[in-house]
Amino acid sequence: MTENDSRQNEVEILCIGTELLLGNILNSNARWLAEELAALGLPHYRQTVIGDNPKRLKESILEASERSNYLITTGGLGATQDDITTEVIAESFNSKLKKRENVFNKIEAKVITQSRSTKKESLKQSLFPERAKIIPNDFGTAPGMIWTPKEGFTILTFPGVPSELKAMWSSYAVPWLMEKTSQRNIFISKVMRFTGIGESQLAEEADDLFTNTNPTLAPYADIGEVRLRLTAKEQSKERAEEIIKPIEKKILKRFGNYFYGTDNESLASVVIKMLIAKNEKLFVAESCTGGGIGATLSAIPGASNAFLGGIIAYNNHIKHKFLGVPYQLLEDYGAVSSQVVQAMAEGARKNSGADWSIATSGIAGPDGGSTSKPVGLIHFAIAGPHGCSLSSESFGSYKGRIAIQKLSVVGSLNKLRLLLLTRS
Amino acid sequence: MTENDSRQNEVEILCIGTELLLGNILNSNARWLAEELAALGLPHYRQTVIGDNPKRLKESILEASERSNYLITTGGLGATQDDITTEVIAESFNSKLKKRENVFNKIEAKVITQSRSTKKESLKQSLFPERAKIIPNDFGTAPGMIWTPKEGFTILTFPGVPSELKAMWSSYAVPWLMEKTSQRNIFISKVMRFTGIGESQLAEEADDLFTNTNPTLAPYADIGEVRLRLTAKEQSKERAEEIIKPIEKKILKRFGNYFYGTDNESLASVVIKMLIAKNEKLFVAESCTGGGIGATLSAIPGASNAFLGGIIAYNNHIKHKFLGVPYQLLEDYGAVSSQVVQAMAEGARKNSGADWSIATSGIAGPDGGSTSKPVGLIHFAIAGPHGCSLSSESFGSYKGRIAIQKLSVVGSLNKLRLLLLTRS
Repeated sequence: MTENDSRQNEVEILCIGTELLLGNILNSNARWLAEELAALGLPHYRQTVIGDNPKRLKESILEASERSNYLITTGGLGATQDDITTEVIAESFNSKLKKRENVFNKIEAKVITQSRSTKKESLKQSLFPERAKIIPNDFGTAPGMIWTPKEGFTILTFPGVPSELKAMWSSYAVPWLMEKTSQRNIFISKVMRFTGIGESQLAEEADDLFTNTNPTLAPYADIGEVRLRLTAKEQSKERAEEIIKPIEKKILKRFGNYFYGTDNESLASVVIKMLIAKNEKLFVAESCTGGGIGATLSAIPGASNAFLGGIIAYNNHIKHKFLGVPYQLLEDYGAVSSQVVQAMAEGARKNSGADWSIATSGIAGPDGGSTSKPVGLIHFAIAGPHGCSLSSESFGSYKGRIAIQKLSVVGSLNKLRLLLLTRS
Repeated sequence: MTENDSRQNEVEILCIGTELLLGNILNSNARWLAEELAALGLPHYRQTVIGDNPKRLKESILEASERSNYLITTGGLGATQDDITTEVIAESFNSKLKKRENVFNKIEAKVITQSRSTKKESLKQSLFPERAKIIPNDFGTAPGMIWTPKEGFTILTFPGVPSELKAMWSSYAVPWLMEKTSQRNIFISKVMRFTGIGESQLAEEADDLFTNTNPTLAPYADIGEVRLRLTAKEQSKERAEEIIKPIEKKILKRFGNYFYGTDNESLASVVIKMLIAKNEKLFVAESCTGGGIGATLSAIPGASNAFLGGIIAYNNHIKHKFLGVPYQLLEDYGAVSSQVVQAMAEGARKNSGADWSIATSGIAGPDGGSTSKPVGLIHFAIAGPHGCSLSSESFGSYKGRIAIQKLSVVGSLNKLRLLLLTRS
């Protein structure tokens, strides 16, 4: 790439395979590579998926060569008729393929041990453009290549099998790319996680910060969660972390009430960590969430150090039998009431011997709603060493059963988190 | 589209979001849409991912307009500054946006109930090109649109939130696309669902059927499940269903043991349906699955007609207290043993009064494994009117905690299903 070239190490990903276009498999390779590129600080602006069709594949390769400096391809390196990647790449730049004896011998040695040698297939996988550098495949047969068919444009090819791609990428492509693209700057990202606030509210109240150029801020939303990604571009990790700090402080000052964790933390992992630090135990009593709080907590490795278990009390008899909720209370107020959810939480705490208990009861829908108790109405109770805290939320019936259940799980974990915070 | 146009209803997918380019999230929307397009019989040759960048987004929209007849976009319809999809689409074809009063009012009505009305945001989401047809969003605020900015090229926009996208697609886009692309033939799809068999085994044993051209067969795999989609192309629904039948029979003859449902059924919905039909009740006793079986069952509308609840017995004391598992048994055999899982299931059935109970205990990892009880080893017990059935499976530690828990949930529901089948 010449100095005058306005492109700056721009990378594209091209995933090749008709099975992707048919929706047969999820394109997890693109996501994995995208995350790797972000970590390397390489600008990555486009991903494309193309089937095993020579004409369309050639078109998309040539397009990328006009736009980007590096093209990373996945798929189409195997031995079957559908595997056309290397061939089409060579043809796109009017180059011929040549057999690499050493590659051929290596492949033959591998397939012979699997007693499925066919010379033709090994030959197909050992054909490369003359000046291409081979990326060895230590976990499979088909190697990839690094080839620069024209100035300022290099193609790196990988198989579609994720384990092979990942090993080849990490062992061979990363060192090569780091050397080739050696910029002075590195990129450091920090993700801040919030709950109890909508993406649009957060975005509006942080409006002035989004104009920041270094670090940059980007918001992301999931059910019951908003994330902010802060990305700094600096000459050293230390310097990058340093310029992230003041913005992070500003954000915490504004949204501290909603902030619960960073990077790969989750509400469940944060709650588990807080409980372990206090050496306190948690038990749950789930009606409308039906086991969802327990499942979310037990997805965290090591959860058993703080999470004892719970009662899924989907039925009034179960609420009475295992949580000691009086039948009279159920009759007087109904299962979806603050009275019943309080009795559930207190019964759960008492019967399990846990320090804390969470109870939920609500109407997840689509049926069972009424004017006074609409679909989406959820009652929460959290019993702890200092008493029982009650609340309710209306999540809106239009969101649907699955989202209402998920929001109830998130909401209850966050309520416990806030109590654990204030009572520490 | 004119008759002379060589393009034939070609569809492209364009997923918009910097989050995708940073690898923060997996592009499951592209896969889902691809599968839907395949089922509709619409040719789909390219998927692109672009960040929230106006220039590059415009480029990719204009490129698609030269190549395809339909462009389906996901993402960028929200209320934040990053959401630029509608704006850039309009600008790409030199069109202006106009406020839709009825859309604005609908959005305001939704956000007001959540006491977070901000007129500016509602306004942003109610701006559309003049002749665009609105795709209502029944599960969120941001609607999509169907807009034909030039002859032979129509754009359909959807939010990036999968649940909203799926509902809008199925309710509004599919009927519209079916009418617009009305070839003489209609496509009828039937999905057959299997569990307990791997995709490769099924694909190998059904090899001869995959050459079928009408109906076509395509396999899809998820954790613990394989699906076969049979798609018939015929002049009438009746005729299509007719030609699906014989193939369906052949498949059932070969794989009937693994088949559990069709189309939108799930293992949980099938089990709930079978229990309701028998007027029998289910209670669960979950150790390693931690509430996952309960959560999966209670995700089904109407589950409370058969599912009473359960005990999440993540801790030995809980197993003893609520399920009556003797401490001696826990000491002699360990919590992960057929003896303990049997006691859990029998205690759960007895204490709840349910007709059936499922119990799980195993090592989900990543820690806690040993040579005799490796990570991935799960014990199952199902107690029912005729006794208790025991089994165990080794799912392989390399699969990771989340997949092992999911496989345990699927496995236990399937075991109950098979017992319900044979004992009917």
